[in-house]
Parts: sequence; C-alpha cells; structure tokens
Amino acid sequence: MIEKSSAHVICELSFTDLKTGEPAVSHCRRAIAAGKSVVTSNKGPAVLALAELRKLASEKGVHFFYEGTVMSGTPVINLMEFCLAGNEINEIKGILNGTTNYILTRMHEGMAYDEALEKAQELGYAEADPTGDVEGFDAMAKVVILANCLMDADLTPEQVDRKGISGITKADIESAEAGNRRWKLISHLIREGGSIKASVKPMALPADDPLSSINGATNALTYSTDLMGDVTVIGAGAGRIETGFSILIDLLRLHSMRG
Amino acid sequence: MIEKSSAHVICELSFTDLKTGEPAVSHCRRAIAAGKSVVTSNKGPAVLALAELRKLASEKGVHFFYEGTVMSGTPVINLMEFCLAGNEINEIKGILNGTTNYILTRMHEGMAYDEALEKAQELGYAEADPTGDVEGFDAMAKVVILANCLMDADLTPEQVDRKGISGITKADIESAEAGNRRWKLISHLIREGGSIKASVKPMALPADDPLSSINGATNALTYSTDLMGDVTVIGAGAGRIETGFSILIDLLRLHSMRG
Repeated sequence: MIEKSSAHVICELSFTDLKTGEPAVSHCRRAIAAGKSVVTSNKGPAVLALAELRKLASEKGVHFFYEGTVMSGTPVINLMEFCLAGNEINEIKGILNGTTNYILTRMHEGMAYDEALEKAQELGYAEADPTGDVEGFDAMAKVVILANCLMDADLTPEQVDRKGISGITKADIESAEAGNRRWKLISHLIREGGSIKASVKPMALPADDPLSSINGATNALTYSTDLMGDVTVIGAGAGRIETGFSILIDLLRLHSMRG
Repeated sequence: MIEKSSAHVICELSFTDLKTGEPAVSHCRRAIAAGKSVVTSNKGPAVLALAELRKLASEKGVHFFYEGTVMSGTPVINLMEFCLAGNEINEIKGILNGTTNYILTRMHEGMAYDEALEKAQELGYAEADPTGDVEGFDAMAKVVILANCLMDADLTPEQVDRKGISGITKADIESAEAGNRRWKLISHLIREGGSIKASVKPMALPADDPLSSINGATNALTYSTDLMGDVTVIGAGAGRIETGFSILIDLLRLHSMRG
C-alpha cells in the first residue's frame, strides 16, 4: 500500500492514455494525497489533471514533476523553471513530435507519405495505429502541458487548433521545395490579449527559419521571452535512455529541493 | 570593508582583462576568503583562476557562479550543471562570439571585411580595438571556461589552437557560397584519449549543419553527451539586459541552494 510506504517519491511510468488519463491520474492522485512527490513521463496526468495535482501537491508540501512529458529528457520545463526563471514567455514555437518530423523529412527526400510512414513504423518511431502522432494528438498534448505549466494558461485539448500531416501530398511537398520551404508540424502558443492561442498544424517554413533545418526524429522548441529574447533548444524528443534520463533529472531536482 | 559586510554574496562586474584577470581575480579571492559567495559575468577570474577560486569556495562553504561568462544569460553552464546533470560531455561545438558571427553573416551578404567590421562597431558589437573579438581571444576564453568547468579539464588559454577571422577574404566567401557552405568562427572541444583538444577557428560549414544557419550576433552551442545525445541551445551571446539576467539567475540558483 502506497500509504504505508516510506518512499518519498513515486515514479509513474504507465502508458499514456490521453482520453481518460488513467490509470496514471489515479496513481498520481493517490501518491500525492499520501504525501509522496511524483515524477512522471506520462502525458495523461499533466494534460488532464495538472491543476488538481499541483494544488494537492502544494497542500501536501510535495512536488509533481514531469520534464519527460515534452521532448523526453531534453531540458524544456526545467530549462524555463530553473535556468530561465523570471522570464515571461510571450510565444512558444516548436517541433514536438519526432515521428511526423521523420515522415516529413523523408517526404522532402522524395518518399510518398505511405512509404515514409511504413519506414517510421519499421524504425519504431510510429506505432501500429499512427493516429496519435500523424493527426497531431501527441503534439497537442504537449502544447497543453507547456501552456498550463509555463504560461499560466488553463487550456484544454479541445481548445488547440489541431491539424495533422496525413493530408500532405507529393504536390504540397513539391510546391514547398520550389519556394525553398520545408513542411514541418509546428506546435504554437502565443499570448493574444488576455488569452493564449494554441495550434498544432503543418506549416511550410522558409529556409532561414531555424526550425526548417531540424530533420529526422529530432525535436526543437523556441521560447520567446521578455528578458532573454528567443532561446531555442534542440534535442531528442523520445527514446528509452532519454526518457529514463528525464526521470533521473526530476529526481535530482527533487533531491536538491529537499537538501 | 568586505570582511565586515553582512552580505552573503558579492556580484563582481568589473571589465574583463584576459591577461591579468585583475582587478576581478583579487575581488573574487578576497570576497570568497571572507566567506561570501561570488557571482560574476567577468571572464578573467573564470579563465585564469577557476581552480583556485573553486577550491577556496569549497573550503569556505560558499559558491562561485559565472553563467554570464559564456553566452550571457542564455543557459549554458546552469543548463549542464542542473538540467543535464549526470551526463558526460564528449564534445562541445559552438558559435560563442557574436561580433565575428555578425561580420561573417554580412560578408556572406556581400560586404567586404572592413565594411562589415565598421558596421559591427557602429552597432556597438565590436570595440574600437576589435582584436579581442576578431582574432578569437574572446571565444578562446569561453572555450577554456567550458573545458575547465564542464569537462574536468585543466586547460590554459595557450593550449587552445586559435585563429581569428581577419584573414577571411571575399574569395574565401565566394568559394564557400559556391559549395553551399558558410564560414563560422567555430569553438570546439573534444575528448581525445585522456585529454581535451581545444580550438577556435573559422570553418566553412555545410548548409545542413545546424550551426550554419545561426546568423547575426546570435550564439549557439551543441553539447554531445553520453545519455542525451546532442543538445543544442541557441540564444543571445551578449547584451545589457541579457548579462544582467545572467547575474539574476545565478543569484536565484544561490538562493535555492541556501533554502
């Protein structure tokens, strides 16, 4: 029973379910209610129950950390909360899904969509049912996490203007190439008036956009801030070791706070 | 008298002298000896007296932080020491001097070296005597700091294979353009056998190298690590607010360690 355990922290590593968040949300809720900090790479709780879990953690004097939910162990959340603390974010723009970026990269090299998807499945980037990646649901979840975690928003998945890459044709690729542009699935958050506008959609970026040269399964993200201007981080978006590292770094962060 | 002050931390913000490190080295030594932590954006002490100041700080139970010495407030040192802690760095490659990157960018747009240098001086990027920037001394200092701070090296400025950009001609630019390459002043550190090889020199990078699209005064740096692979950060390399922010973030780091 978690309530009787002497553990200080529970690592929640079950599979992501973006519809219900379960069983991860229940795991996190029960651990935090029992006075344990929680570290997770599961997007479910961070997308569907962030406000609740943060409030509960604050009441219990413990922490809820989830660096691994966006770009695996590449510093994204800790980067803002620690290294860029004190900056206000006006805009976030990024490539947050490696599978679609791999497929689009191959399509620009001449492959058809179906062939590129098959290749991505062979390499283990895409799942048997690729919907979550190619229709932008995975990136949508990450956009919600970034908005609510770093921009004080109260965004729900339904509020993200989402479009995937499955409709991109060979003709779209050729016309982009002709204009020296490259298709990318761009995740975007921007402050407009008092609210946050969020989208995930394919965009044909000009060659001088730093995100246009991010190829293969690599992810990238640019924070536009008030004090430090644009800060971009490029790195792995997934991977077994990389996700494991995201858990380690959150444990280290927790440890440094207890010290 | 600093010895009688009740301050916990001294911010050392005098001008950099890479030959003697003074007066900053003396300021840092005296503050640390008196039991004060030191935060600085001055490269002198970090290049010329890092081992001594770190040892003294450790003996006195205080800290010596210097995020602002490399890429101003863009997370570089704190990024590795906090967000990527536990990774071993095998290689560092970057554009660490904004003035030379600005000059090379303008030269690729058609300007002659002298004209581009004058423009850089007008904009306040280059000093009246531009030697420190254009001959690579500034980047050399940053390479020494990164090696000694993050790669456990014991590198001196003399051990860096340094070459500036003042010898780059219009013909060099044209020949690079013809091969779809761009000249960049590349700072490089690599582990070879038991030691660290360090260089600062102009390189004509192919278009698909992520550093080739870093234009103007922007800086960038790629860490090649054992756990997280390549992690790249792109951001401001200088600036009044940005350097001020580097001091703030080190003060916040200090505060979180005292808490």
